[in-house]
Amino acid sequence: MHFTSERRLDDGVLEREFALGEIPGTLWTPESATSAAPVPLILMAHNNGLSKREPRLVARARHSVAYGYAVASIDAAGCGDRPRSAADEQARADIRRAMRAGEPVDEIFESYIGPLVEKAVPDWRTTLDALLALPEIGGPVGYSGWTAVGIRLAVTEPRIAAAGFFAGGYVPRAQREEARQVGVPLLFLLQWDDEGNPRQRALDLFDAFGTKEKTLHANLGGHTGTPWFEADDGNRFFGRHLK
Amino acid sequence: MHFTSERRLDDGVLEREFALGEIPGTLWTPESATSAAPVPLILMAHNNGLSKREPRLVARARHSVAYGYAVASIDAAGCGDRPRSAADEQARADIRRAMRAGEPVDEIFESYIGPLVEKAVPDWRTTLDALLALPEIGGPVGYSGWTAVGIRLAVTEPRIAAAGFFAGGYVPRAQREEARQVGVPLLFLLQWDDEGNPRQRALDLFDAFGTKEKTLHANLGGHTGTPWFEADDGNRFFGRHLK
Repeated sequence: MHFTSERRLDDGVLEREFALGEIPGTLWTPESATSAAPVPLILMAHNNGLSKREPRLVARARHSVAYGYAVASIDAAGCGDRPRSAADEQARADIRRAMRAGEPVDEIFESYIGPLVEKAVPDWRTTLDALLALPEIGGPVGYSGWTAVGIRLAVTEPRIAAAGFFAGGYVPRAQREEARQVGVPLLFLLQWDDEGNPRQRALDLFDAFGTKEKTLHANLGGHTGTPWFEADDGNRFFGRHLK
Repeated sequence: MHFTSERRLDDGVLEREFALGEIPGTLWTPESATSAAPVPLILMAHNNGLSKREPRLVARARHSVAYGYAVASIDAAGCGDRPRSAADEQARADIRRAMRAGEPVDEIFESYIGPLVEKAVPDWRTTLDALLALPEIGGPVGYSGWTAVGIRLAVTEPRIAAAGFFAGGYVPRAQREEARQVGVPLLFLLQWDDEGNPRQRALDLFDAFGTKEKTLHANLGGHTGTPWFEADDGNRFFGRHLK
Protein backbone atom coordinates (compact mmCIF):
# COMPACT_ATOMS: atom_id res chain seq x y z
CA MET A 1 0.00 0.00 0.00
CA HIS A 2 1.53 3.29 -1.14
CA PHE A 3 0.16 6.62 -0.03
CA THR A 4 0.26 8.93 -3.03
CA SER A 5 -1.04 12.11 -1.41
CA GLU A 6 -1.91 13.47 2.01
CA ARG A 7 -4.06 16.43 3.05
CA ARG A 8 -4.95 17.73 6.49
CA LEU A 9 -8.51 19.02 6.32
CA ASP A 10 -9.75 21.78 8.59
CA ASP A 11 -12.07 19.46 10.55
CA GLY A 12 -9.21 17.39 12.00
CA VAL A 13 -9.40 14.81 9.23
CA LEU A 14 -6.35 13.34 7.52
CA GLU A 15 -7.21 12.41 3.92
CA ARG A 16 -4.78 10.11 2.14
CA GLU A 17 -4.96 8.72 -1.37
CA PHE A 18 -3.41 5.31 -1.77
CA ALA A 19 -2.60 2.73 -4.42
CA LEU A 20 -2.60 -0.98 -3.75
CA GLY A 21 -1.49 -2.69 -6.94
CA GLU A 22 -4.15 -1.61 -9.41
CA ILE A 23 -6.59 -0.54 -6.70
CA PRO A 24 -6.85 3.20 -6.07
CA GLY A 25 -8.35 4.25 -2.76
CA THR A 26 -8.84 7.00 -0.22
CA LEU A 27 -8.43 6.72 3.51
CA TRP A 28 -9.85 9.26 5.92
CA THR A 29 -8.73 9.10 9.56
CA PRO A 30 -9.04 11.35 12.59
CA GLU A 31 -5.72 13.13 13.11
CA SER A 32 -5.91 11.88 16.68
CA ALA A 33 -5.74 8.20 15.65
CA THR A 34 -2.41 6.61 16.64
CA SER A 35 -0.99 3.17 17.30
CA ALA A 36 -1.67 3.83 20.99
CA ALA A 37 -5.27 4.82 20.22
CA PRO A 38 -6.32 3.02 17.04
CA VAL A 39 -9.82 3.58 15.64
CA PRO A 40 -12.38 1.16 14.17
CA LEU A 41 -12.67 0.99 10.39
CA ILE A 42 -15.63 1.48 8.06
CA LEU A 43 -15.34 0.26 4.46
CA MET A 44 -17.47 2.64 2.42
CA ALA A 45 -18.35 0.90 -0.83
CA HIS A 46 -20.05 3.15 -3.29
CA ASN A 47 -22.37 2.20 -6.07
CA ASN A 48 -20.39 0.86 -8.99
CA GLY A 49 -21.20 3.81 -11.24
CA LEU A 50 -19.79 6.48 -8.95
CA SER A 51 -16.23 7.58 -8.38
CA LYS A 52 -14.86 7.45 -4.84
CA ARG A 53 -14.30 11.21 -5.27
CA GLU A 54 -18.04 11.89 -5.58
CA PRO A 55 -18.70 14.85 -3.20
CA ARG A 56 -21.68 13.22 -1.41
CA LEU A 57 -19.56 10.17 -0.59
CA VAL A 58 -16.62 12.26 0.56
CA ALA A 59 -18.91 14.31 2.83
CA ARG A 60 -20.32 11.11 4.31
CA ALA A 61 -16.83 9.71 4.93
CA ARG A 62 -15.70 12.88 6.73
CA HIS A 63 -18.89 12.82 8.80
CA SER A 64 -18.06 9.29 9.97
CA VAL A 65 -14.49 10.30 10.81
CA ALA A 66 -15.94 12.96 13.10
CA TYR A 67 -17.62 10.09 14.98
CA GLY A 68 -14.20 8.49 15.52
CA TYR A 69 -13.85 6.03 12.66
CA ALA A 70 -11.31 5.46 9.92
CA VAL A 71 -13.14 5.33 6.60
CA ALA A 72 -11.81 3.82 3.38
CA SER A 73 -13.20 3.85 -0.12
CA ILE A 74 -11.77 2.25 -3.24
CA ASP A 75 -12.56 2.02 -6.90
CA ALA A 76 -12.87 -1.76 -7.16
CA ALA A 77 -12.32 -3.59 -10.48
CA GLY A 78 -14.62 -2.11 -13.13
CA CYS A 79 -15.90 0.63 -10.76
CA GLY A 80 -15.40 4.38 -10.52
CA ASP A 81 -12.29 5.47 -12.41
CA ARG A 82 -11.07 1.92 -13.13
CA PRO A 83 -10.94 0.88 -16.82
CA ARG A 84 -14.07 -0.68 -18.29
CA SER A 85 -14.22 -2.96 -21.30
CA ALA A 86 -16.30 -2.01 -24.34
CA ALA A 87 -18.69 -4.83 -23.35
CA ASP A 88 -19.07 -3.27 -19.88
CA GLU A 89 -19.82 0.13 -21.37
CA GLN A 90 -22.38 -1.44 -23.69
CA ALA A 91 -24.06 -3.29 -20.80
CA ARG A 92 -24.27 -0.06 -18.77
CA ALA A 93 -25.82 1.75 -21.71
CA ASP A 94 -28.27 -1.12 -22.21
CA ILE A 95 -29.35 -1.01 -18.55
CA ARG A 96 -29.90 2.76 -18.63
CA ARG A 97 -31.86 2.55 -21.86
CA ALA A 98 -34.03 -0.34 -20.62
CA MET A 99 -34.74 1.41 -17.29
CA ARG A 100 -35.76 4.63 -19.05
CA ALA A 101 -38.01 2.66 -21.39
CA GLY A 102 -39.52 0.75 -18.45
CA GLU A 103 -38.38 -2.55 -19.97
CA PRO A 104 -37.22 -5.56 -17.91
CA VAL A 105 -33.59 -5.15 -16.90
CA ASP A 106 -33.01 -8.31 -14.89
CA GLU A 107 -31.10 -10.29 -17.47
CA ILE A 108 -28.84 -7.44 -18.63
CA PHE A 109 -28.33 -6.52 -15.00
CA GLU A 110 -27.51 -10.06 -13.98
CA SER A 111 -24.97 -10.55 -16.75
CA TYR A 112 -23.17 -7.27 -16.00
CA ILE A 113 -23.49 -6.67 -12.24
CA GLY A 114 -23.11 -10.32 -11.23
CA PRO A 115 -19.49 -10.56 -12.47
CA LEU A 116 -18.76 -7.00 -11.29
CA VAL A 117 -19.62 -8.00 -7.72
CA GLU A 118 -17.51 -11.16 -8.01
CA LYS A 119 -14.54 -9.08 -9.12
CA ALA A 120 -15.04 -6.25 -6.61
CA VAL A 121 -15.04 -8.40 -3.49
CA PRO A 122 -11.40 -9.65 -3.74
CA ASP A 123 -10.27 -6.03 -4.16
CA TRP A 124 -12.09 -5.08 -0.98
CA ARG A 125 -10.55 -8.00 0.93
CA THR A 126 -7.06 -7.09 -0.28
CA THR A 127 -7.69 -3.53 0.83
CA LEU A 128 -8.96 -4.69 4.22
CA ASP A 129 -5.75 -6.68 4.79
CA ALA A 130 -3.61 -3.63 4.00
CA LEU A 131 -5.68 -1.23 6.10
CA LEU A 132 -5.66 -3.42 9.19
CA ALA A 133 -1.86 -3.55 8.98
CA LEU A 134 -1.75 0.22 9.63
CA PRO A 135 -1.01 0.93 13.29
CA GLU A 136 -3.65 3.68 13.64
CA ILE A 137 -6.45 1.35 12.52
CA GLY A 138 -7.83 -1.35 14.81
CA GLY A 139 -10.76 -3.65 14.47
CA PRO A 140 -13.64 -4.19 14.45
CA VAL A 141 -14.68 -3.45 10.90
CA GLY A 142 -17.95 -2.12 9.53
CA TYR A 143 -19.19 -2.04 5.96
CA SER A 144 -21.37 0.69 4.48
CA GLY A 145 -22.98 1.12 1.08
CA TRP A 146 -23.44 -1.02 -2.01
CA THR A 147 -25.75 -3.86 -1.03
CA ALA A 148 -24.62 -6.67 -3.36
CA VAL A 149 -20.91 -6.29 -2.56
CA GLY A 150 -21.78 -5.98 1.11
CA ILE A 151 -23.73 -9.23 1.16
CA ARG A 152 -20.84 -11.10 -0.44
CA LEU A 153 -18.32 -9.51 1.93
CA ALA A 154 -20.44 -10.10 5.04
CA VAL A 155 -20.79 -13.77 4.11
CA THR A 156 -17.17 -14.44 3.14
CA GLU A 157 -15.23 -12.08 5.40
CA PRO A 158 -15.43 -12.84 9.14
CA ARG A 159 -13.74 -9.55 10.03
CA ILE A 160 -16.91 -7.62 9.06
CA ALA A 161 -18.76 -7.07 12.36
CA ALA A 162 -21.69 -4.92 11.23
CA ALA A 163 -23.07 -3.72 7.91
CA GLY A 164 -25.15 -0.85 6.59
CA PHE A 165 -26.64 -1.50 3.15
CA PHE A 166 -28.28 1.06 0.87
CA ALA A 167 -31.03 0.58 -1.76
CA GLY A 168 -30.99 -3.10 -2.70
CA GLY A 169 -33.77 -3.27 -5.26
CA TYR A 170 -31.54 -4.83 -7.92
CA VAL A 171 -29.17 -7.37 -6.45
CA PRO A 172 -27.69 -10.27 -8.45
CA ARG A 173 -29.28 -13.67 -7.95
CA ALA A 174 -26.22 -15.10 -6.18
CA GLN A 175 -26.32 -12.37 -3.53
CA ARG A 176 -30.10 -12.60 -3.11
CA GLU A 177 -29.51 -16.24 -2.23
CA GLU A 178 -26.56 -15.45 0.04
CA ALA A 179 -28.66 -12.92 1.97
CA ARG A 180 -29.91 -15.72 4.25
CA GLN A 181 -26.32 -16.34 5.35
CA VAL A 182 -25.73 -12.76 6.49
CA GLY A 183 -25.43 -13.05 10.26
CA VAL A 184 -24.01 -9.68 11.36
CA PRO A 185 -26.09 -6.79 12.71
CA LEU A 186 -27.56 -4.94 9.77
CA LEU A 187 -28.99 -1.50 9.02
CA PHE A 188 -30.83 -1.57 5.70
CA LEU A 189 -31.55 1.89 4.30
CA LEU A 190 -33.81 2.49 1.33
CA GLN A 191 -35.59 5.31 -0.44
CA TRP A 192 -39.33 4.66 -0.66
CA ASP A 193 -39.60 5.98 -4.24
CA ASP A 194 -36.16 4.94 -5.52
CA GLU A 195 -36.51 5.10 -9.30
CA GLY A 196 -33.81 2.49 -9.86
CA ASN A 197 -34.64 0.05 -7.05
CA PRO A 198 -38.11 -1.54 -6.96
CA ARG A 199 -39.50 -1.15 -3.45
CA GLN A 200 -41.00 -4.61 -3.09
CA ARG A 201 -37.74 -6.30 -4.05
CA ALA A 202 -35.83 -4.29 -1.50
CA LEU A 203 -38.40 -5.20 1.19
CA ASP A 204 -38.19 -8.86 0.18
CA LEU A 205 -34.41 -8.69 0.50
CA PHE A 206 -34.70 -7.18 3.97
CA ASP A 207 -37.02 -10.04 4.89
CA ALA A 208 -34.50 -12.58 3.57
CA PHE A 209 -31.45 -11.53 5.59
CA GLY A 210 -30.59 -14.25 8.07
CA THR A 211 -29.36 -11.98 10.85
CA LYS A 212 -31.45 -11.69 14.00
CA GLU A 213 -30.46 -8.05 14.41
CA LYS A 214 -31.75 -6.17 11.40
CA THR A 215 -33.28 -2.72 11.16
CA LEU A 216 -34.95 -1.13 8.15
CA HIS A 217 -34.94 2.62 7.59
CA ALA A 218 -36.96 4.06 4.73
CA ASN A 219 -37.55 7.66 3.75
CA LEU A 220 -39.79 9.30 1.20
CA GLY A 221 -38.18 10.28 -2.09
CA GLY A 222 -35.92 9.11 -4.89
CA HIS A 223 -32.50 7.45 -4.94
CA THR A 224 -30.44 10.52 -4.09
CA GLY A 225 -32.93 12.00 -1.61
CA THR A 226 -31.74 10.29 1.59
CA PRO A 227 -32.13 12.86 4.39
CA TRP A 228 -28.95 13.99 6.17
CA PHE A 229 -30.02 12.57 9.52
CA GLU A 230 -29.53 9.04 8.18
CA ALA A 231 -25.77 9.67 8.20
CA ASP A 232 -26.04 10.24 11.95
CA ASP A 233 -28.23 7.17 12.34
CA GLY A 234 -25.66 5.10 10.44
CA ASN A 235 -22.82 6.28 12.64
CA ARG A 236 -24.84 5.53 15.76
CA PHE A 237 -25.58 2.06 14.40
CA PHE A 238 -21.85 1.46 13.99
CA GLY A 239 -21.32 2.97 17.43
CA ARG A 240 -23.43 0.17 18.91
CA HIS A 241 -21.44 -2.56 17.19
CA LEU A 242 -17.89 -1.36 16.55
CA LYS A 243 -17.03 0.42 19.79
CA MET B 1 -56.61 19.92 36.23
CA HIS B 2 -55.88 18.72 39.74
CA PHE B 3 -52.59 17.14 40.67
CA THR B 4 -53.35 14.23 42.98
CA SER B 5 -49.80 13.11 43.74
CA GLU B 6 -46.23 14.23 43.18
CA ARG B 7 -42.96 12.28 43.32
CA ARG B 8 -39.38 13.42 42.73
CA LEU B 9 -37.58 10.54 41.06
CA ASP B 10 -33.85 10.07 41.42
CA ASP B 11 -33.10 10.92 37.77
CA GLY B 12 -34.28 14.54 38.13
CA VAL B 13 -37.79 13.74 36.94
CA LEU B 14 -40.92 15.13 38.57
CA GLU B 15 -43.80 12.64 38.21
CA ARG B 16 -47.28 13.98 38.88
CA GLU B 17 -50.59 12.17 38.68
CA PHE B 18 -53.49 14.36 37.67
CA ALA B 19 -57.25 14.24 37.20
CA LEU B 20 -59.04 16.32 34.61
CA GLY B 21 -62.74 15.64 35.04
CA GLU B 22 -63.00 11.92 34.45
CA ILE B 23 -59.61 11.71 32.74
CA PRO B 24 -56.75 10.34 34.85
CA GLY B 25 -53.25 11.14 33.67
CA THR B 26 -49.58 11.28 34.51
CA LEU B 27 -47.21 14.11 33.73
CA TRP B 28 -43.44 13.69 33.79
CA THR B 29 -41.30 16.84 33.61
CA PRO B 30 -37.64 17.65 34.13
CA GLU B 31 -37.25 19.25 37.56
CA SER B 32 -35.39 22.02 35.75
CA ALA B 33 -38.45 23.06 33.70
CA THR B 34 -39.80 26.45 34.81
CA SER B 35 -41.92 29.27 33.43
CA ALA B 36 -38.64 30.97 32.47
CA ALA B 37 -37.40 27.81 30.73
CA PRO B 38 -40.47 25.88 29.54
CA VAL B 39 -40.00 22.55 27.76
CA PRO B 40 -41.71 21.05 24.68
CA LEU B 41 -44.45 18.48 25.27
CA ILE B 42 -44.86 14.91 24.04
CA LEU B 43 -48.27 13.26 24.29
CA MET B 44 -47.58 9.56 24.82
CA ALA B 45 -50.69 7.65 23.85
CA HIS B 46 -50.53 4.00 24.70
CA ASN B 47 -52.37 1.20 23.07
CA ASN B 48 -55.95 1.08 24.34
CA GLY B 49 -55.46 -2.16 26.24
CA LEU B 50 -52.61 -0.96 28.46
CA SER B 51 -52.67 1.13 31.59
CA LYS B 52 -50.67 4.35 31.62
CA ARG B 53 -48.82 2.79 34.59
CA GLU B 54 -47.42 -0.01 32.42
CA PRO B 55 -43.66 -0.17 33.30
CA ARG B 56 -42.41 -0.11 29.68
CA LEU B 57 -44.41 3.06 29.00
CA VAL B 58 -43.24 4.71 32.20
CA ALA B 59 -39.60 3.88 31.35
CA ARG B 60 -40.07 5.37 27.88
CA ALA B 61 -41.62 8.53 29.32
CA ARG B 62 -38.75 9.04 31.76
CA HIS B 63 -36.26 8.44 28.96
CA SER B 64 -37.87 11.26 26.95
CA VAL B 65 -37.79 13.58 29.97
CA ALA B 66 -34.04 13.02 30.12
CA TYR B 67 -33.93 14.47 26.57
CA GLY B 68 -35.64 17.63 27.84
CA TYR B 69 -39.32 17.04 27.18
CA ALA B 70 -42.45 17.07 29.29
CA VAL B 71 -44.33 13.82 28.67
CA ALA B 72 -47.98 13.19 29.42
CA SER B 73 -50.04 10.03 29.29
CA ILE B 74 -53.74 9.56 30.02
CA ASP B 75 -56.24 6.78 30.20
CA ALA B 76 -58.66 8.07 27.56
CA ALA B 77 -62.34 7.03 27.55
CA GLY B 78 -62.58 3.23 27.51
CA CYS B 79 -58.79 2.80 27.82
CA GLY B 80 -56.46 1.62 30.58
CA ASP B 81 -58.16 1.83 33.98
CA ARG B 82 -61.27 3.67 32.70
CA PRO B 83 -64.57 1.78 32.98
CA ARG B 84 -65.59 -0.43 30.09
CA SER B 85 -69.10 -1.50 29.20
CA ALA B 86 -70.04 -5.18 29.07
CA ALA B 87 -70.28 -4.77 25.27
CA ASP B 88 -66.70 -3.42 25.18
CA GLU B 89 -65.44 -6.35 27.22
CA GLN B 90 -67.24 -8.74 24.91
CA ALA B 91 -65.76 -7.09 21.80
CA ARG B 92 -62.24 -7.31 23.26
CA ALA B 93 -62.73 -10.99 24.04
CA ASP B 94 -64.08 -11.57 20.52
CA ILE B 95 -61.03 -9.88 18.94
CA ARG B 96 -58.58 -11.91 21.02
CA ARG B 97 -60.38 -15.16 20.25
CA ALA B 98 -60.59 -14.43 16.51
CA MET B 99 -56.89 -13.45 16.35
CA ARG B 100 -55.85 -16.62 18.14
CA ALA B 101 -57.99 -18.69 15.79
CA GLY B 102 -56.60 -16.87 12.77
CA GLU B 103 -60.09 -15.72 11.77
CA PRO B 104 -60.83 -12.34 10.15
CA VAL B 105 -61.04 -9.62 12.80
CA ASP B 106 -61.73 -6.58 10.67
CA GLU B 107 -65.43 -6.21 11.36
CA ILE B 108 -65.23 -6.83 15.12
CA PHE B 109 -62.22 -4.55 15.24
CA GLU B 110 -63.94 -1.82 13.26
CA SER B 111 -67.07 -1.86 15.42
CA TYR B 112 -65.07 -1.68 18.66
CA ILE B 113 -61.89 0.31 17.94
CA GLY B 114 -63.55 2.80 15.58
CA PRO B 115 -65.76 4.32 18.32
CA LEU B 116 -62.94 3.99 20.89
CA VAL B 117 -60.72 6.24 18.76
CA GLU B 118 -63.55 8.71 18.27
CA LYS B 119 -64.03 8.93 22.05
CA ALA B 120 -60.32 9.04 22.93
CA VAL B 121 -59.41 12.02 20.77
CA PRO B 122 -61.55 14.64 22.61
CA ASP B 123 -59.99 13.50 25.90
CA TRP B 124 -56.52 14.04 24.45
CA ARG B 125 -57.46 17.52 23.19
CA THR B 126 -58.90 18.48 26.58
CA THR B 127 -55.68 17.26 28.18
CA LEU B 128 -53.58 19.22 25.71
CA ASP B 129 -55.45 22.44 26.57
CA ALA B 130 -54.81 21.90 30.27
CA LEU B 131 -51.14 20.97 29.87
CA LEU B 132 -50.29 23.96 27.68
CA ALA B 133 -51.75 26.21 30.38
CA LEU B 134 -48.99 25.06 32.78
CA PRO B 135 -46.15 27.62 32.90
CA GLU B 136 -43.36 25.01 32.71
CA ILE B 137 -44.70 23.57 29.44
CA GLY B 138 -44.28 25.39 26.14
CA GLY B 139 -44.98 24.36 22.60
CA PRO B 140 -44.41 22.79 20.21
CA VAL B 141 -46.17 19.49 20.80
CA GLY B 142 -45.27 16.00 19.66
CA TYR B 143 -47.36 12.85 19.68
CA SER B 144 -46.03 9.35 20.27
CA GLY B 145 -47.67 5.94 20.21
CA TRP B 146 -51.06 4.55 19.23
CA THR B 147 -51.38 5.02 15.47
CA ALA B 148 -55.14 5.42 15.02
CA VAL B 149 -55.54 8.06 17.73
CA GLY B 150 -52.43 9.79 16.42
CA ILE B 151 -53.77 10.04 12.88
CA ARG B 152 -57.02 11.58 14.13
CA LEU B 153 -55.15 14.01 16.40
CA ALA B 154 -52.60 14.99 13.74
CA VAL B 155 -55.41 15.77 11.32
CA THR B 156 -57.70 17.65 13.71
CA GLU B 157 -55.25 19.31 16.08
CA PRO B 158 -53.00 21.97 14.56
CA ARG B 159 -50.86 22.15 17.70
CA ILE B 160 -49.33 18.73 16.92
CA ALA B 161 -46.03 19.50 15.17
CA ALA B 162 -44.56 16.00 14.74
CA ALA B 163 -45.75 12.47 15.33
CA GLY B 164 -44.24 9.06 16.06
CA PHE B 165 -46.62 6.17 15.37
CA PHE B 166 -46.16 2.56 16.42
CA ALA B 167 -47.43 -0.65 14.78
CA GLY B 168 -50.41 0.35 12.62
CA GLY B 169 -51.45 -2.98 11.13
CA TYR B 170 -55.03 -2.64 12.32
CA VAL B 171 -56.32 0.89 12.02
CA PRO B 172 -60.03 1.75 11.66
CA ARG B 173 -61.26 2.58 8.18
CA ALA B 174 -61.85 6.26 9.01
CA GLN B 175 -58.23 6.74 10.09
CA ARG B 176 -56.84 4.78 7.13
CA GLU B 177 -58.66 7.31 4.95
CA GLU B 178 -57.50 10.27 7.05
CA ALA B 179 -53.87 9.14 6.74
CA ARG B 180 -53.57 11.07 3.47
CA GLN B 181 -54.31 14.27 5.37
CA VAL B 182 -51.47 13.82 7.86
CA GLY B 183 -49.06 16.61 6.98
CA VAL B 184 -46.65 16.75 9.92
CA PRO B 185 -43.22 15.07 10.01
CA LEU B 186 -43.71 11.44 10.87
CA LEU B 187 -41.65 8.57 12.28
CA PHE B 188 -43.48 5.28 11.71
CA LEU B 189 -42.11 2.41 13.79
CA LEU B 190 -43.14 -1.18 13.29
CA GLN B 191 -42.08 -4.65 14.28
CA TRP B 192 -41.44 -6.84 11.23
CA ASP B 193 -43.11 -9.92 12.76
CA ASP B 194 -45.78 -8.18 14.86
CA GLU B 195 -48.25 -10.95 15.62
CA GLY B 196 -51.15 -8.50 15.97
CA ASN B 197 -50.38 -6.14 13.10
CA PRO B 198 -50.18 -7.51 9.55
CA ARG B 199 -46.96 -6.23 7.97
CA GLN B 200 -48.35 -5.42 4.54
CA ARG B 201 -51.16 -3.31 6.00
CA ALA B 202 -48.70 -1.34 8.07
CA LEU B 203 -46.50 -0.75 4.99
CA ASP B 204 -49.55 0.31 2.99
CA LEU B 205 -50.44 2.78 5.73
CA PHE B 206 -46.91 4.21 5.68
CA ASP B 207 -47.29 4.63 1.93
CA ALA B 208 -50.63 6.41 2.38
CA PHE B 209 -49.50 9.18 4.78
CA GLY B 210 -49.69 12.52 3.03
CA THR B 211 -46.69 14.11 4.70
CA LYS B 212 -43.57 14.76 2.65
CA GLU B 213 -41.35 14.04 5.64
CA LYS B 214 -41.94 10.46 6.67
CA THR B 215 -39.48 7.85 7.90
CA LEU B 216 -40.11 4.15 8.46
CA HIS B 217 -38.20 2.16 11.06
CA ALA B 218 -38.71 -1.59 11.25
CA ASN B 219 -36.98 -4.17 13.41
CA LEU B 220 -37.08 -7.92 13.49
CA GLY B 221 -39.35 -9.51 16.09
CA GLY B 222 -42.81 -9.43 17.61
CA HIS B 223 -45.00 -6.63 18.98
CA THR B 224 -43.16 -6.14 22.27
CA GLY B 225 -39.66 -6.70 20.86
CA THR B 226 -38.80 -3.14 19.82
CA PRO B 227 -35.08 -2.64 20.56
CA TRP B 228 -34.14 -0.03 23.15
CA PHE B 229 -32.28 2.14 20.63
CA GLU B 230 -35.57 3.09 19.00
CA ALA B 231 -36.40 5.14 22.10
CA ASP B 232 -33.27 7.19 21.38
CA ASP B 233 -34.17 7.42 17.71
CA GLY B 234 -37.66 8.67 18.65
CA ASN B 235 -36.26 11.36 20.92
CA ARG B 236 -33.83 12.48 18.24
CA PHE B 237 -36.72 12.65 15.76
CA PHE B 238 -38.58 14.95 18.15
CA GLY B 239 -35.35 16.87 18.68
CA ARG B 240 -35.34 17.75 14.98
CA HIS B 241 -38.91 19.04 15.04
CA LEU B 242 -39.77 20.30 18.52
CA LYS B 243 -36.62 22.15 19.51
